[in-house]
Amino acid sequence: MAIDISSLFAKAGALLASDHTSVVSMNLFVALLCACIVIGHLLEENRWINESITALAIGLCTGIVILLTTGGKSSHLLVFSEELFFIYLLPPIIFNAGFQVKKKQFFHNFMTIVLFGAVGTLISFIIISLGAMQFFKKMNIGPLTIGDYLAIGAIFSATDSVCTLQVLNQDETPLLYSLVFGEGVVNDATSVVLFNAIQSFDLSHINSGIALQLVGNFLYLFISSTMLGVLAGLLSAYIIKKLYFGRHSTDREVALMILMAYFSYMLAELFYLSGILTVFFCGIVMSHYTWHNVTESSRVTTKHAFATLSFVAEIFIFLYVGMDALDIEKWRVVSDSLGKSVGVSAVLLGLILLGRAAFVFPLSFLSNLTKKSSYEKVDWKQQVTIWWAGLMRGAVSMALAYNQFTSSGGFTQLRENALMITSTITVVLFSTVAFGLMTKPLVRILLPSSKQLTRMISSEPSSPKSLILPFLNNETESETSQQGNTSIPRPTSLRMLLSAPSHTVHYYWRKFDNAFMRPVFGGRGFTPFVPGSPTERTEHQWQ
Amino acid sequence: MAIDISSLFAKAGALLASDHTSVVSMNLFVALLCACIVIGHLLEENRWINESITALAIGLCTGIVILLTTGGKSSHLLVFSEELFFIYLLPPIIFNAGFQVKKKQFFHNFMTIVLFGAVGTLISFIIISLGAMQFFKKMNIGPLTIGDYLAIGAIFSATDSVCTLQVLNQDETPLLYSLVFGEGVVNDATSVVLFNAIQSFDLSHINSGIALQLVGNFLYLFISSTMLGVLAGLLSAYIIKKLYFGRHSTDREVALMILMAYFSYMLAELFYLSGILTVFFCGIVMSHYTWHNVTESSRVTTKHAFATLSFVAEIFIFLYVGMDALDIEKWRVVSDSLGKSVGVSAVLLGLILLGRAAFVFPLSFLSNLTKKSSYEKVDWKQQVTIWWAGLMRGAVSMALAYNQFTSSGGFTQLRENALMITSTITVVLFSTVAFGLMTKPLVRILLPSSKQLTRMISSEPSSPKSLILPFLNNETESETSQQGNTSIPRPTSLRMLLSAPSHTVHYYWRKFDNAFMRPVFGGRGFTPFVPGSPTERTEHQWQ
Repeated sequence: MAIDISSLFAKAGALLASDHTSVVSMNLFVALLCACIVIGHLLEENRWINESITALAIGLCTGIVILLTTGGKSSHLLVFSEELFFIYLLPPIIFNAGFQVKKKQFFHNFMTIVLFGAVGTLISFIIISLGAMQFFKKMNIGPLTIGDYLAIGAIFSATDSVCTLQVLNQDETPLLYSLVFGEGVVNDATSVVLFNAIQSFDLSHINSGIALQLVGNFLYLFISSTMLGVLAGLLSAYIIKKLYFGRHSTDREVALMILMAYFSYMLAELFYLSGILTVFFCGIVMSHYTWHNVTESSRVTTKHAFATLSFVAEIFIFLYVGMDALDIEKWRVVSDSLGKSVGVSAVLLGLILLGRAAFVFPLSFLSNLTKKSSYEKVDWKQQVTIWWAGLMRGAVSMALAYNQFTSSGGFTQLRENALMITSTITVVLFSTVAFGLMTKPLVRILLPSSKQLTRMISSEPSSPKSLILPFLNNETESETSQQGNTSIPRPTSLRMLLSAPSHTVHYYWRKFDNAFMRPVFGGRGFTPFVPGSPTERTEHQWQ
Repeated sequence: MAIDISSLFAKAGALLASDHTSVVSMNLFVALLCACIVIGHLLEENRWINESITALAIGLCTGIVILLTTGGKSSHLLVFSEELFFIYLLPPIIFNAGFQVKKKQFFHNFMTIVLFGAVGTLISFIIISLGAMQFFKKMNIGPLTIGDYLAIGAIFSATDSVCTLQVLNQDETPLLYSLVFGEGVVNDATSVVLFNAIQSFDLSHINSGIALQLVGNFLYLFISSTMLGVLAGLLSAYIIKKLYFGRHSTDREVALMILMAYFSYMLAELFYLSGILTVFFCGIVMSHYTWHNVTESSRVTTKHAFATLSFVAEIFIFLYVGMDALDIEKWRVVSDSLGKSVGVSAVLLGLILLGRAAFVFPLSFLSNLTKKSSYEKVDWKQQVTIWWAGLMRGAVSMALAYNQFTSSGGFTQLRENALMITSTITVVLFSTVAFGLMTKPLVRILLPSSKQLTRMISSEPSSPKSLILPFLNNETESETSQQGNTSIPRPTSLRMLLSAPSHTVHYYWRKFDNAFMRPVFGGRGFTPFVPGSPTERTEHQWQ
């Protein structure tokens, strides 16, 4: 690669010669992305492989090729960049997840999700931090501070919500999907709070005051991030409803939705909130209100454009992690202590398994106590699946590890820091590949009821994501119940009757939604229809 | 702004503190983009303003605010970046233009377009270079080399195709649109060749050998760029047709189309070709073949997603140019010679007017000689409009000027270079605002036949771009003629009968297309339809 670059540089008459390094790497990257999509499509019906693993494998192969062609020199083109990840790649993935999530299912399990995401992450954090402290001191790794140990706890408590999305399917296992994915979103907020707290608070003497401060900080972060996302979503709905009524323009509507969503994320980052929580709730609100205020072609476009953006960003991340993993510079520093590096990775993987088990099973038990219906309880097979599906560590862990263990700017030469970086890479690769590979078969073995459905769906030759049509399913369902009886939602099943408490909340929310929210912000059934308006015309054009 | 940034930096406990400068500027930028879209929508029915001018004005206002809040300090957040422009903003705009262009109209006028774009740009380049040499020596500007003068010629011969797209309307004035826009695309290639040639060839002794080399270079660039774009488009069509048949996935299809288009652009940049020509022809081929191989929802999504990307990129560019214009550092160097700066800008504007007049009128006359039908001739009113609509200078000029007149990396302190940069900015702002403002009214006065149509269209409250549905119109039209008589295209009008030569080319092309191209690469009417395939199902879901 480097040979190519230098020969290209030597060429005379180059406009923009200074950009040519980035042009070469972008060419490589775009070509690899195309390859991932095509190969991922070909391997689709394979029951083990998913797109993340394909991308990781292609990334690793490319890394090897680069390593060989450059003769073992490091290639700085391919070093993992926190900024790229947090500012460009993560927002579309999380926004799309919020936009396409089954809202009913999500809010139905809201308490369990928060319990898993907040309390669970804290338990996992404590276990991993204490365990690392115990083991690493014995292994004589180097002078890690108490802050480093706590950071390790936070880094390895951050589950990979991107990978979870790929492994579980919203249509096959809706309950598990909403629990594991919802947990992942809250988990991210918790990890970021913990990580921030570790970097800013004086941790040498922890007392109850600081603990309270931490709890307050978390609550502030959670509530303000959510509110910001909801406000941004409502603002977009209001603007599009008021300004665009009767004179729709698909391009402007789509542009405004994308920009407002991105703005909410960046605003959250600006105020040191959790951008992930913000953009997730912004996505939910946009799919509930804004999406119903736009033209039919805007709806199709946004639905698929967001899914595509998210899809490309996911592949990008895994490709990136795969390529970065072989960056030789990091491995050179730890090459004399390879055994120690393997040991550290093994200990961390063990702690991750233990830390997750330590909260999934007790908290599921607690959650089951509050449910009356056996339909709603999380049985042990589902508990094992939840435990397993959340074991993967991904780009968030990588980004936090880089933040903690590299000195500002360049790569640190300190041996213990290099060791932690390489161990993080090992854990991320191993957990994504090994745990990821086994999740699909595990889900099929443990939850045979979903096996039939899986077969049925995989006989429809389409990607899992394009099959997820949450709005249509969701809206049709709620529309039926609404049309049946407008004042009191009709209990469509025994399950709905039995789940009285959350049903009540849902009933009052819908009442409020219909009386106040929808008339102001639009939403299904509340967008005035003008015969012969451009809306209608656009629809006809596509029929 | 700077106060905000520093206070934010001071905040403790910042995750990703190093990225915060970019977070702040991105917030500002995204907010301004939203504002531009909303304000542009509100001002839509105004007959003078267009979206570019709105964005320029908002950019200028923001620049003033930044200047005032920082107390006159330069803000390096907002310096124009060539890389950002050429790698991220320009490709989607040009690709979308190719994707949405009326192919029949474009190829019908192909020879005229190439004549205007290649020969015309050369004439304009010579006039501006010679004129600048004459005037600037008298004005005692500083030690500019012959290379600098020729670069000035190339810089100010590059018309702004982005702005042209906004001012002319494909449905109102199809002939003018295809002439002016097509010219703009070819013009870009010519300008880049000229600029490269100036930077690489030894210009002190120009002889016929070098001149021939330049011509050869241009032909090589034009043909290879076009071929690359066509090949990339055909490859995407082939991949999607072969791999995706019967198992469509909207997300993968859309992602593949976007990535392949971008890949073609980057590949062209890698081989020092004209990425703009490449991506333009890639867009044309994709809309002719690939677009017909995908699902109905992919079609809606790609059409609007590409238009939206292009729309946002356009606004971004004008906002950027507006904000960058007030960067104080550049102006400080020339502040003692403000009169000279105004003089230089005025001379350049005069030369632009003259240089364009010098080729539009003679070449139109030549072009008219080859046409038999009076329908096809470009009358003098249209000639004036073509002359006027191509006077705007934009981001390409800015990028080339920065490339020539700033030393690598930072801003040069040389007075004559600073003078050229500020003059370029002045010319770009003035031509975009003054000429841009007057184009719409001019078109209405000169071409009253389109006035009615304009009124009719502007009563339909939608952006010009979302109204352009070239495929539908175009395809329906050609379908009718095709269904009428499959072996010999039916002459639908007197005009078509008279335009025999280009008609013949079109006839043989269609025969070849139907016999060889479409069976291999797909395209309208050649995508096998399987009842009950996901394609059909997806369509029904959206109906």
